[in-house]
Amino acid sequence: MNWEENVRNVVPYTPGEQPRGRDVIKLNTNENPYPPAPGVTEALMQIRPEEYSLYPDPDADALRECLAAYHGVGKEQVFTGVGSDDVLAMAFLTFFNSGKPILFPDVTYSFYDVWAELFRIPYETRALREDFTIDPKDYRTDCGGVVFPNPNAPTGILETLDTVEEIVRANPGAAVIVDEAYIDFAGIGGRSALDLLERYENLLVVRTFSKSRSLAGMRIGYAIGSEKMIAYLQDVKFSFNSYTMNLPSQRAGIASVQDEAYFQKRLRQLISTRERTKRELGRLGFAFSDSRSNFLFVSHDEIPAKELFEALKEAGIYVRYFEKPRIDNYLRISVGTDEAMDTLLAFLERYIEGRKES
Amino acid sequence: MNWEENVRNVVPYTPGEQPRGRDVIKLNTNENPYPPAPGVTEALMQIRPEEYSLYPDPDADALRECLAAYHGVGKEQVFTGVGSDDVLAMAFLTFFNSGKPILFPDVTYSFYDVWAELFRIPYETRALREDFTIDPKDYRTDCGGVVFPNPNAPTGILETLDTVEEIVRANPGAAVIVDEAYIDFAGIGGRSALDLLERYENLLVVRTFSKSRSLAGMRIGYAIGSEKMIAYLQDVKFSFNSYTMNLPSQRAGIASVQDEAYFQKRLRQLISTRERTKRELGRLGFAFSDSRSNFLFVSHDEIPAKELFEALKEAGIYVRYFEKPRIDNYLRISVGTDEAMDTLLAFLERYIEGRKES
Repeated sequence: MNWEENVRNVVPYTPGEQPRGRDVIKLNTNENPYPPAPGVTEALMQIRPEEYSLYPDPDADALRECLAAYHGVGKEQVFTGVGSDDVLAMAFLTFFNSGKPILFPDVTYSFYDVWAELFRIPYETRALREDFTIDPKDYRTDCGGVVFPNPNAPTGILETLDTVEEIVRANPGAAVIVDEAYIDFAGIGGRSALDLLERYENLLVVRTFSKSRSLAGMRIGYAIGSEKMIAYLQDVKFSFNSYTMNLPSQRAGIASVQDEAYFQKRLRQLISTRERTKRELGRLGFAFSDSRSNFLFVSHDEIPAKELFEALKEAGIYVRYFEKPRIDNYLRISVGTDEAMDTLLAFLERYIEGRKES
Repeated sequence: MNWEENVRNVVPYTPGEQPRGRDVIKLNTNENPYPPAPGVTEALMQIRPEEYSLYPDPDADALRECLAAYHGVGKEQVFTGVGSDDVLAMAFLTFFNSGKPILFPDVTYSFYDVWAELFRIPYETRALREDFTIDPKDYRTDCGGVVFPNPNAPTGILETLDTVEEIVRANPGAAVIVDEAYIDFAGIGGRSALDLLERYENLLVVRTFSKSRSLAGMRIGYAIGSEKMIAYLQDVKFSFNSYTMNLPSQRAGIASVQDEAYFQKRLRQLISTRERTKRELGRLGFAFSDSRSNFLFVSHDEIPAKELFEALKEAGIYVRYFEKPRIDNYLRISVGTDEAMDTLLAFLERYIEGRKES
């Protein structure tokens, strides 16, 4: 008998590359090209050395109160964690215990099946329609739970609140998790599942500070749901690690939420760059769905995505390519600054021209 | 069928109270009374606002290299996490999967059974001897793994390297985790299980920056083991949350390790206060084991611990009391500054005198 026979063998999630110390254009992990609100840096500078010696608030009460006020819910409806991945992992562990398979789309955030495997949760995928939208009828079945992102990743497609509600309503016997990592970029008409919270006790809405709030480096995620759901989540969190969010992340989170004007200004800026980039990519022969996130999911009518991915990388422009069924001819391109997008577009234009000539 | 039927019901760990905004003497969670090395604050001040927008290094390579060099091991032998609780939770999930019970002492860190319950790992406890030391023979049995702290918590007792080795050697079929949260306070003659690493592939040694390095607020823990063990841990970590340690915690960790002189100076200071406090407590009628940690585990020959706990709390002096078998007449008192210990001792002296008179 060897100790290795007792090990949990898993195939981990592969995050996007994080090239260090090189002059690259990084459009591969949906980071925000702008710095966080100035108040964030100020709040961090004000931490006194002796504060680091003490444990942070295990309940993250000040941050939870701040988020509760922002969203117009009670503090007991808010759960926080080390990025939305931590929040989602805790939610899988807490809510998906029926023995029945949980359901999620076939094309979606590629961490869902990894968590299911890690925690030995049975799961089934439901194929998105040809246009990559969700058919809510696929989720009208006796299941162990449902999870999907809205807008979806990596497609960027936003589902209507009616579709989301149809799925939540069909599943009173299971938790439904709506992963809204990108909802802040949805723009006009984009409605959050938060609007459904009053009516459904089994709905958990997950958010992150990593994208819209320019705080990927701080690891701040949260969930909003019924008081009952949050109490169950808190119990599991306190059975895992009492002190998850460190002091700087709690302080930074509060300072970010306090500057709504900066937040809205940066969102408008990014959405405007996204829409302009869509027009330019269309001109270059790219097809894409109407992304309502901070990335574009594009396919060229002549050049294979993998070829473009490699050519871009060679040129120091990192985008994301998934070698997976249905999406292996697409690139996921994060929306950066106007300048970064101009460099990308100029390279693509030259590359496509050069290929036609040769 | 209701969604609540699928919830994982657990009884969470209860961390020590974190009283906020009150003028209290906090000797209840084994925090370090001194600030971290000056280089830590400097390193944090030097983070540029735009760095927060990017994901932190998911591998924490720079910190792992720094710790590897410090301990004279390879980088691939180091694993990091959000405090040692995160590291221990990952280690339980990774290594304790045999279906056979894992073993730990009956009096020990009260998170072990919580993790076992959370992950549905069967477990059995082994009674410490009457003097609260471990009998290594208790761990010579076919089991799913072993975990214990050295020095033990909440007793503060340091086991010899021979005892530790006997347990590791007896269990080639299972992982043995030695939780060395307090080893830096062991002082002269205190030997770490790191000295056994070359000979045992199944040994994992867990450390934290929360106690000896005054960084409880940053959440930095790590483990050192064989390359094989660390690779398995990394796979599980990357199946749980790619980006666990945030940017400030990685930078702070490195800066702390780089100032060895400050580290040693503060350790000497704390150990000297501990030894003085032992002498004074003895004079007041307290009995205690020879703590080699940054806390004392004491019992009075006349006054029940619970009464003292409540009287101290009333006076704004927070210590820890565990209402548990074998230890319900003990107080765990963290070692603070000389000034804090003087206040504690003066209160105890007055209290004991006052009780005799009445």
